[in-house]
Amino acid sequence: MTERPRPGSARPGGRTARTRAAVLAAALDELDEVGFAALTLDRLAARSGVHVSTIRRRWRSVEGVVVDLMAQHSATIPTPDSGEFRQDLYELAEAIAGFHALPRSRNLVEAMVAAAAYDPHIAELVRGAFMARTDVVTQIVHRAVERSEVPPDTDAYEVIAALSAPFYYRLLILRRDIDERLVRTSAEAAYRAACGGVFGGGE
Amino acid sequence: MTERPRPGSARPGGRTARTRAAVLAAALDELDEVGFAALTLDRLAARSGVHVSTIRRRWRSVEGVVVDLMAQHSATIPTPDSGEFRQDLYELAEAIAGFHALPRSRNLVEAMVAAAAYDPHIAELVRGAFMARTDVVTQIVHRAVERSEVPPDTDAYEVIAALSAPFYYRLLILRRDIDERLVRTSAEAAYRAACGGVFGGGE
Repeated sequence: MTERPRPGSARPGGRTARTRAAVLAAALDELDEVGFAALTLDRLAARSGVHVSTIRRRWRSVEGVVVDLMAQHSATIPTPDSGEFRQDLYELAEAIAGFHALPRSRNLVEAMVAAAAYDPHIAELVRGAFMARTDVVTQIVHRAVERSEVPPDTDAYEVIAALSAPFYYRLLILRRDIDERLVRTSAEAAYRAACGGVFGGGE
Repeated sequence: MTERPRPGSARPGGRTARTRAAVLAAALDELDEVGFAALTLDRLAARSGVHVSTIRRRWRSVEGVVVDLMAQHSATIPTPDSGEFRQDLYELAEAIAGFHALPRSRNLVEAMVAAAAYDPHIAELVRGAFMARTDVVTQIVHRAVERSEVPPDTDAYEVIAALSAPFYYRLLILRRDIDERLVRTSAEAAYRAACGGVFGGGE
């Protein structure tokens, strides 16, 4: 992601943004119709009307496009701001559960994790996409610190990781569906640990 | 795993056990030398001296062998029994961290998760291997219930999943190394949630 301009960054609302929108829309349609395993840059080019060399220059690979699609999607999810830390964590857990309730999203995450196992560049893209999303939602923790709900030295990234991890463990390792109980236990466990100073202070 | 006899179950210590030992040892050597992506049943047959049709009948696929290898490995990890719930959870977290500290183990898990994304049979094998291991270590929670350290209606599987999840999130999603701080925060967060009744009672 550091080796090329960020997709859509050159001329917001202009041709760059339109190109990105067309390619990501084509990727979404292709994922629904043929799935990730059958996705190719040529198919994306044919469907989007964007030349394949343009797609390759901007995203490098099918996986690059799909990670960008994930990033675009997660940017549309609002960050909870209820005025109360516990409620914010529950809402965030609900949002994660809601995302993974869509088979399309679940397949996407699984495909990305699988592709990352074989390609360090994709691994970096996956990491970047998750970190970008985490950056945004750490606001929940920063606001909780301001309200003195959690210790000031709380590591916000660790709180978000603690809340998120059980969902990915359920999907990728236990391979079962996410349910409401997981939403509650994940949010509650992260809440209590954070309030209790478990994520404080470094060592 | 339900469609065939469990590997090694027919004649413990006999030819069945020797065959299993030879194939799993060959798999371990191959993984170290050529890696998972290059592993084939023919290579396993050549290296182990076991006929390829025997391997195919018993394990069905390379992934079947590798999952059995993981199961064999995890069966050798002792279940902590310090007499204290918190200490047991810390020791379990240390054992998980120790397992993933070996690049070979990390690659194995990653390869299994990747393979599961494309093959429901492998997904079932992965799930079965993790559940078998979890079955064993839930003893930690059962003993804590007997000592009245946690509420009697605590869901032992949820406690173990809560402790384990952050390690897989770190490796597969954030794609960073596991460190001592993760051992501590994972064990402590699971401990406090379990003692506080977060995993109690169903809904």
